[in-house]
Amino acid sequence: MDTRTGLPVVGMVGGGQLARMTHQAAIALGQSLKVLAASPEDGAARVAADVEIGAHTDLAALRTFAKGCDVVTFDHEHVPGEHIRALAAEGITVYPPADALHFAQDKQAMRERLADLGAPAPRWAPVHTAADVAAFAAEVGWPVVAKATRGGYDGKGVWVLPDAAAAGALVATGTALIVEERMPLRRELAVMVARSPHGQVAAYPVVETVQRDGVCVEVVAPAPDLPQERAVAAQRLAIDVAGALGVVGVLAVELFETADGLYVNELAMRPHNSGHWSIEGSRTSQFEQHLRAVLDYPMGDTALTAPVVVMANVLGGPDGGRSIDERLHHLFAADPGAKVHLYGKGVRPGRKIGHVTVLGDDLATVRARAARAARWLQEGTA
Amino acid sequence: MDTRTGLPVVGMVGGGQLARMTHQAAIALGQSLKVLAASPEDGAARVAADVEIGAHTDLAALRTFAKGCDVVTFDHEHVPGEHIRALAAEGITVYPPADALHFAQDKQAMRERLADLGAPAPRWAPVHTAADVAAFAAEVGWPVVAKATRGGYDGKGVWVLPDAAAAGALVATGTALIVEERMPLRRELAVMVARSPHGQVAAYPVVETVQRDGVCVEVVAPAPDLPQERAVAAQRLAIDVAGALGVVGVLAVELFETADGLYVNELAMRPHNSGHWSIEGSRTSQFEQHLRAVLDYPMGDTALTAPVVVMANVLGGPDGGRSIDERLHHLFAADPGAKVHLYGKGVRPGRKIGHVTVLGDDLATVRARAARAARWLQEGTA
Repeated sequence: MDTRTGLPVVGMVGGGQLARMTHQAAIALGQSLKVLAASPEDGAARVAADVEIGAHTDLAALRTFAKGCDVVTFDHEHVPGEHIRALAAEGITVYPPADALHFAQDKQAMRERLADLGAPAPRWAPVHTAADVAAFAAEVGWPVVAKATRGGYDGKGVWVLPDAAAAGALVATGTALIVEERMPLRRELAVMVARSPHGQVAAYPVVETVQRDGVCVEVVAPAPDLPQERAVAAQRLAIDVAGALGVVGVLAVELFETADGLYVNELAMRPHNSGHWSIEGSRTSQFEQHLRAVLDYPMGDTALTAPVVVMANVLGGPDGGRSIDERLHHLFAADPGAKVHLYGKGVRPGRKIGHVTVLGDDLATVRARAARAARWLQEGTA
Repeated sequence: MDTRTGLPVVGMVGGGQLARMTHQAAIALGQSLKVLAASPEDGAARVAADVEIGAHTDLAALRTFAKGCDVVTFDHEHVPGEHIRALAAEGITVYPPADALHFAQDKQAMRERLADLGAPAPRWAPVHTAADVAAFAAEVGWPVVAKATRGGYDGKGVWVLPDAAAAGALVATGTALIVEERMPLRRELAVMVARSPHGQVAAYPVVETVQRDGVCVEVVAPAPDLPQERAVAAQRLAIDVAGALGVVGVLAVELFETADGLYVNELAMRPHNSGHWSIEGSRTSQFEQHLRAVLDYPMGDTALTAPVVVMANVLGGPDGGRSIDERLHHLFAADPGAKVHLYGKGVRPGRKIGHVTVLGDDLATVRARAARAARWLQEGTA
């Protein structure tokens, strides 16, 4: 507890943009997020008052960091489970707990657990050899999707294998893998819930996520033309998964929508790119909600603040002779209502450096404005 | 400029809640507000990464602070004009400029300048002796309102004088004073505009401000039952004043509404309590808008995000056996949609420690919710 204010201290391991935006939410709650960053150059380390520098794989650093935190949580899923268990054994409150986070860290464990729960999922198999992959493909057909069981994010650690030769080359790298059937996608959806230790769960509206080259480029809230029944089924699925896995904090469930229905693609147990729209688009942002959940505060209202909310990611683009500051001027002149979030990162082609959110009444208009705003920041041109 | 991000650095003199909330807005713009705080215990100093400790009256401290800032601005109006002029003479960009800020620092100068501009105002007079006050009262009638020309805020520096004896006692303190007629108020209103060096001005909807014991307790946006014509007149007045005075940044114009019309009460050239509702209630918060203005970015959209927005201030209340953290739990359980902003201050009776904002469709409901939320945090009981 911060004895000056009488309010709890939340520590977040990882100093990226998720911690940066969580810090903004913590300020409103009277707090200051404590951050364990890998480097003083990290997005959150540049804006927060209470920052320690250390590796998330270093138990001693984690232990030092946890001192003085009422609860420790994460900006990513890469902290080793044994470290989290060691902290918990020493009486430190860590959310989500290691036993829940495990299913966001290990895709094979996630697939097995979801199968136990009867959650709809693509057909899948653990594989060790090229022959395993070929046997699976004989069942579901080429191409198949291979995923590294651990460490993937933003399209990294995911491969589409067209044939046995590609499978052989990937297996030869020694990466631990599962394979999944390639679903006949209509589109991708995501649903976020937040669960408190008390067991209260709040669900956000289901959103559509649009990917390009495995990276999310756009999120539309609520997902257009989604039948109410299917939206409720998605929310119920996420609520059930959060409860069954013992998640505390936010849980993002990424879904495939096919002609037949919904299938779970991935789980994330932290504020998630598919929820950035909620900063302006929901009465309670995912960042505030995550804090409320890990602090066991009652959950906030998840209602939309406008009929249509579109978030577009801003990736580092070509130099184009215009600084990001100059691009901001142009964007603000072109669209006074576009809300910009920059992550304090240097620009590198393809790197997520921020996002923009636009709210309104008409889907096509809002979508076009968000895309144009992102393009301005990314390419320095409309 | 921050060479790591290519974005400008804004320095704010003063480390209170206005700087604290401006820092939240700066983070979204890819920046980190640089803060000159009087103490490491100040609300903004507790949450910002780049903080210097120093007095706003110390030119050397201001000079050191200004190094590395692209623009220097203020969380309060107490920096001596000669210090601001000294910085400007050394090539430092300071907004608002000293020549504009002067009219927010000196009430006599403000009254004289507004009279030159023909802005509607209460009858007033500079006074030096009890006889001056009595002569003024002979014209406008007792009681009269006396104001310290410099240094007042939140009802401090304002006195209602019932008679000549009270006037004599106040004059005897040696405080430099003006006196004003006591207007037959219908209510108080406020209008905020933001002006960039380029001369672009954006106006917010006119709000009603409710005071108790000289302290603002509630702000209703937009001001209920305000004829469109009068609202536009108020916005136009604020735009004209901002332009005439050369304001850069936000300008809050506090107004009296009487049966006859509107009269200027006070000017503030910084984010203002009457604009806190804009964090959730406007597409662009006053804090983002102030940053955009002092950076000469194009102004953001000032549209309301809901038909009714009510902000209620939270003052430090009686202990009541419930910590602020416990009060938060109760409030969040009672009203999942109430948005809380705590300023990181210890609780002292009567001290502003935060505010709550509620949005909705129905004035009476939203007002009741905001009042109840503030009461929960203030008194620990509904």
